[in-house]
Amino acid sequence: MAMSFQPPKGTCDLLPDKMILRGIIVDGIRRVFENYGYEPMETPAFESCPLLEIKCGEDIREQIYKFKDKGGRDLGLRYDLTVPLARVVASNPQLPKPFKRYCISRVWRYEKPTATRRREFFQCDVDIVGSPDPISDAEVVAVAADCLEALGLSNFLVRLNNRKILEGMLEYVGVSGDRALDVFRAIDKLAKIGREGVKGELRKIGVAPPASSKLLDLICKEGEPKGVLDYAKGLLKGITAAEGGCRELELVVSHLKRFGLPEERLRVDLSLARGIDYYTGPIFEVIMEGDEDVGSVAGGGRYDTLIELCGGRATPATGISLGVDRIAEIIERRRSLPVPRIIAKVFVAPADDSMRSEAVAIVQELRRGNIASDIDLAKRRLAAQLEYASKRGFPYAVIVGKRELQQGSVLLRDMTARTQRIVKRDKLVEVLRGLVTPKG
Amino acid sequence: MAMSFQPPKGTCDLLPDKMILRGIIVDGIRRVFENYGYEPMETPAFESCPLLEIKCGEDIREQIYKFKDKGGRDLGLRYDLTVPLARVVASNPQLPKPFKRYCISRVWRYEKPTATRRREFFQCDVDIVGSPDPISDAEVVAVAADCLEALGLSNFLVRLNNRKILEGMLEYVGVSGDRALDVFRAIDKLAKIGREGVKGELRKIGVAPPASSKLLDLICKEGEPKGVLDYAKGLLKGITAAEGGCRELELVVSHLKRFGLPEERLRVDLSLARGIDYYTGPIFEVIMEGDEDVGSVAGGGRYDTLIELCGGRATPATGISLGVDRIAEIIERRRSLPVPRIIAKVFVAPADDSMRSEAVAIVQELRRGNIASDIDLAKRRLAAQLEYASKRGFPYAVIVGKRELQQGSVLLRDMTARTQRIVKRDKLVEVLRGLVTPKG
Repeated sequence: MAMSFQPPKGTCDLLPDKMILRGIIVDGIRRVFENYGYEPMETPAFESCPLLEIKCGEDIREQIYKFKDKGGRDLGLRYDLTVPLARVVASNPQLPKPFKRYCISRVWRYEKPTATRRREFFQCDVDIVGSPDPISDAEVVAVAADCLEALGLSNFLVRLNNRKILEGMLEYVGVSGDRALDVFRAIDKLAKIGREGVKGELRKIGVAPPASSKLLDLICKEGEPKGVLDYAKGLLKGITAAEGGCRELELVVSHLKRFGLPEERLRVDLSLARGIDYYTGPIFEVIMEGDEDVGSVAGGGRYDTLIELCGGRATPATGISLGVDRIAEIIERRRSLPVPRIIAKVFVAPADDSMRSEAVAIVQELRRGNIASDIDLAKRRLAAQLEYASKRGFPYAVIVGKRELQQGSVLLRDMTARTQRIVKRDKLVEVLRGLVTPKG
Repeated sequence: MAMSFQPPKGTCDLLPDKMILRGIIVDGIRRVFENYGYEPMETPAFESCPLLEIKCGEDIREQIYKFKDKGGRDLGLRYDLTVPLARVVASNPQLPKPFKRYCISRVWRYEKPTATRRREFFQCDVDIVGSPDPISDAEVVAVAADCLEALGLSNFLVRLNNRKILEGMLEYVGVSGDRALDVFRAIDKLAKIGREGVKGELRKIGVAPPASSKLLDLICKEGEPKGVLDYAKGLLKGITAAEGGCRELELVVSHLKRFGLPEERLRVDLSLARGIDYYTGPIFEVIMEGDEDVGSVAGGGRYDTLIELCGGRATPATGISLGVDRIAEIIERRRSLPVPRIIAKVFVAPADDSMRSEAVAIVQELRRGNIASDIDLAKRRLAAQLEYASKRGFPYAVIVGKRELQQGSVLLRDMTARTQRIVKRDKLVEVLRGLVTPKG
């Protein structure tokens, strides 16, 4: 008895019924990315371990799939698409700045798998390298929002914060700045483990009550940008970096409005921290109203020190990442996009074996006419062929029979309506193109 | 001093100048795949090691990147896209047959890197599962040929052979059938290590002269299909399986002609062996005339036992894989496809800072009109912006100046011709669409 195999734990196969929707999502996102002037770039799936660990933080470090190649090199599967970008920019100083690139590819993290969290997932990233201006933070957020709009998901909420404001909060409650990254990683778990859980985490890293309680009280403030930023500015008056962080967010918000984002879609949330260590300024997450349980569908922020840490010149950078898997999950739930069951449109069925050669000629004609078509490859009888075509969901079948062919015709069957009509063979491509070409 | 990082040995980054061509290649291949009725499918980058090792053969086994996850599972990066497909088919018996899927994705092999061989590479696979008929072998070859045609590479040669003919040759020279896979792996290296090298390899696995010399003499026969197949049929008369193999190839060739492949592009080459153990019948490779040094640009064959070995029902299958990296290499060499330097078409430049807000409004209008556009994100002076736009290769720039804007106009600059003209702001999308939309 042969063994039976499954995809490795935490990963999944994407069969055609899932992949057709994925294709629509990725094509839609790519169109928006290119529309905004981002250029495609790809890097290897694995990187040297020391690179990956530069500024990932402890939680991510635990999640990297590590291995040695046969040359003894310490490698790891990339956990995001940002660190590889930083490496490329660091080692290619000739790239004109601002450098805007997109990447749509896989990343891996050894996490506890849940319904919406897998160990392998697909990210769609845009990043702007070389611009310190908040307009760039606004642009990457606007790109993500446009992608969601293009996919029919317009009820998103953009949550904004700034690491500099969080740092100001630490100073305000008297926590040393060198604990900042540990504290941010703890706060990032707020939605997952709750207030008491975060307090426990903070205690572990030496931030005990009352500082931890006070901090949590202060940051649990979210709402329309002006109100929350006025609150933060009042609180952090005199802490220069934090005041600068507030001003940056004000600029991000005003640029976002110019980019066309409705103000009611924007929130400043002072408890937003993000879980990776490399962020240095504005940070953002996008969630879908009504599908908050799926988690954020996009997230990112500014990382002005990472490229230098990767061996390059000091170069400011910001970016955002859309999660294909979560977007697909939401669209599947909502059934909000029309997804064809099958990509091919026409099944060509020879009525008997003597018609096979002619059927091949016809299917090749359709394909040359860019009408995605299939043909019987299993020498089945006509009834079995049509049953297969119906089961697979072909919208049309062309039946190649001797009698019709002698009159220069074939039978065109509408598989949905279960009707058929005679069509002249030399008009077939034209007739089918009219039927299968999307209107409008 | 920070460290400096490179992509891991044997891998490479694909910067935008390379990726734009890759995008054109992959889009073109995908269009052909879908035109032939193949459905998209994706599987994880890694699989359980025992699965990968089922029928890969010793050489590939040495090349698998292996690692354990934190749960102690033995995993390996996939070395091809066929074994994962076989696993999916084995564990999803409900899939209607024939099942035709395509997959465009990465695979990894720890090989000695050369100019045209890397440790990470991109494959584009089509496979037909559930059809034992040689028409299916012909179809996957026809798909590969159509992909090359679609990319302007029509001077390909298809090399065909059949593992059953090779097995017949072994029987003919008196080598035991249980050495067959070892012998095939040795023969596969003929182009790389030469006749004497293969004889050495054969000796290592216990096939000494005169059997090895005789075998090499017999298989060094290639040319137009009929002549070579007649030779093989004559030689192997009475060896039933081999005679069947010859008949299969005759059918593949006659189907290929029906699919529209010119006969002069077809060769039967009895020394073609393929390096992976899972092949059981017809095998094929595609090379480009004049670029043979790049290696084959496509390869595949029939593997009728693999799905059962992966725990499924006995299910015939055949497929072919196109190598994106080698196709890109050849197109780059030949400069045979027009590749834009940049994806965006228009750079919007505010003449001074007071124009920035209006410039954002204009760039968003262009983007909404599906004209891929970019805007200054670095607060540069106009001259520096235009220098950047020129360096990056934007075909057009829109200059937003106060005087023109007061008259409801902007300046449209042709960056190639270095000319500019005044265009009404409300006609800008229309004018640019006329300029940037590909003709025909």
